[in-house]
Order: sequence, then C-alpha cells, then structure tokens
Amino acid sequence: MDKMSGEKQELSYRAEVRRADVDSVGRLVEATGFFSVEEIGIARELVEERMVRGAQSGYFFLFAEAGRRLAGYACFGPIPGTMQSFDLYWIAVYPSFQQKGIGRMLLQAAEREMMKNGAGRVYVDTSSRPQYEPTRRFYTACGYRKEAVLADFYAPGDGKIIYLKILV
Amino acid sequence: MDKMSGEKQELSYRAEVRRADVDSVGRLVEATGFFSVEEIGIARELVEERMVRGAQSGYFFLFAEAGRRLAGYACFGPIPGTMQSFDLYWIAVYPSFQQKGIGRMLLQAAEREMMKNGAGRVYVDTSSRPQYEPTRRFYTACGYRKEAVLADFYAPGDGKIIYLKILV
Repeated sequence: MDKMSGEKQELSYRAEVRRADVDSVGRLVEATGFFSVEEIGIARELVEERMVRGAQSGYFFLFAEAGRRLAGYACFGPIPGTMQSFDLYWIAVYPSFQQKGIGRMLLQAAEREMMKNGAGRVYVDTSSRPQYEPTRRFYTACGYRKEAVLADFYAPGDGKIIYLKILV
Repeated sequence: MDKMSGEKQELSYRAEVRRADVDSVGRLVEATGFFSVEEIGIARELVEERMVRGAQSGYFFLFAEAGRRLAGYACFGPIPGTMQSFDLYWIAVYPSFQQKGIGRMLLQAAEREMMKNGAGRVYVDTSSRPQYEPTRRFYTACGYRKEAVLADFYAPGDGKIIYLKILV
C-alpha cells in the first residue's frame, strides 16, 4: 500500500459542528495564507452562526480529520428561494495536508452531503485574479464548469467567476 | 400642472427604518401579488434584521411615501468582500401606485443612496420566467444591462438573470 492511499484511509469526515470549530476554522483559513483578515472573520462567523441557529442558519459544514488533527473543511448550504441549488461557501486544506488529493476527496464528500440535503446543483464563486488560477484549476478538475463571469465584481480588474457542477 | 407631476411632487423618501416597517413591508410585498409566502417572510426578516443590527446588518432601505401612505420601498446593501458592488435585494410598489413612474423614481433615489454609501456598481437578480418580463423591462428601462444568466438556478426551467448598472 502506498503512502497516498495510507493517508487517504486515515481521513475521516465529521458534519457535526462544535464550539471549538470556530477557532479551528479561523486558524485553518489563516494558515492557508490565502484569505484577508476580513475573510477570516467571515469564516469564523459562519461557524458561530451555525452554533447559534443550527441548520436554520443555512450553513452546513464538513470537517476532514486525520486522527484528531483538522486537515481541511468545507462550508456550504442551500441557496434560499431555489429548489435544489447549493452554494459552496468555503473549502480550505492546511498547507501541510495539501498536494495529497485531500481537497478533492473533501469536495466529493461535501457533494455527497449536499445531495443528502437535497442539492442538485452546486455553485461556487472564485476571483478572476491570477492568484486564483490554482483554485480555478481545482474546480475544473473536480468537474465544475465556468457558468458566468461578472467583470470587476470584487474590485476594478477583479471579477467574479461562477462555477457550477450539476449533481443530479 | 398635470396629475402625474402633481403626484411626483407629493412623494418623499425616508431611509430611516422603524419598527412598524416590518409589517408595512410585509403588507406591501404581499399586495403586489408577486411574491411567495416564503419570499414575503424574507422581506419582513430583512427589516427585522436591520432593526436589530443596524447598518451592521448590511441592509439599507428607502421608503417612498405619499403623505403618510407607503407607496413603495427598496432594500439594498453592499456585497461583502467587494470594493464597491451593491445588491438591490427588493423593490416593490403598491399596485395602486404603479404605472406612475414611481418605481423608476424610487430606484433612482435608491441609487443615489447607494452612491452615498460607496456604491459603484449595482447588481440585481431576476427570474427568467415569463412572469418576470415586466420586471426585466423595468430594469432595462432604468439603465440596467443583462450581465449573466444562470440557467435552471431557481428551479428546472427557472433561471437567474443578473442585471448590472455601473454608477461610477
């Protein structure tokens, strides 16, 4: 058995959200070096809102754990007013766990979790900036296709690209 | 002076949100006959959230009043994570006040209010269903252009059309 599949087998998923996840998610998102202070705050707030309001919050989570260590997480939820569209709000993997296929496995597990909750379509927004090229390649490799582009949405020269994966 | 301009002069705008607006907005949105029970609930909730959290809620309002009667309202706010993009969440005019140009004046007043709060771009989502053809014509007449289409977003056969107006 090679190293990769060994690591894959160690990975477990948890949908239940605990109080400690607020800080864990903040640390994880910060550790990626990919998000602004404002964005890190938002990532934490979504966990807090889930703790306070439960499923009513509209935020669902999936934590990928290697033993007792958090390797990555995804946050998603149904888009209000739609029949079966979900948004993938966040997906992040610790730098030390990257390049092992964990992001892809986590996203697939998140898609299964969304389908259990009625999802037929998953939308995810990314930036058009060069910095996000690996992110865009990741979604494409995971079966997402570019559905729309909103030029200059985030800021001048920084557009929003909306990716879509049809699950059912 | 004709009837039309007489009515225009009577219209006043109020950005301040009061407790009574929760019910007023619910009645207004319901009276249009255009929104589902779920949507009416959401319209009310946004006013409530504004009452509880103030500007922190991210929801701004503009009420068009003819004397002491509510003629229409708009709800809008900055899109988190963007530099100058705003969403127009709601705009509705009482049936008895429609066909008088009030919607257009209200939207222009809302755009001025958004610009005061830093908006450079206004996005508004509508449905691709035939029922929304007057809505789409309204946005086009007000200077909005179709920026993107997400097929089957709301439901099979019911896509989301994203309109955009660049303010600055």
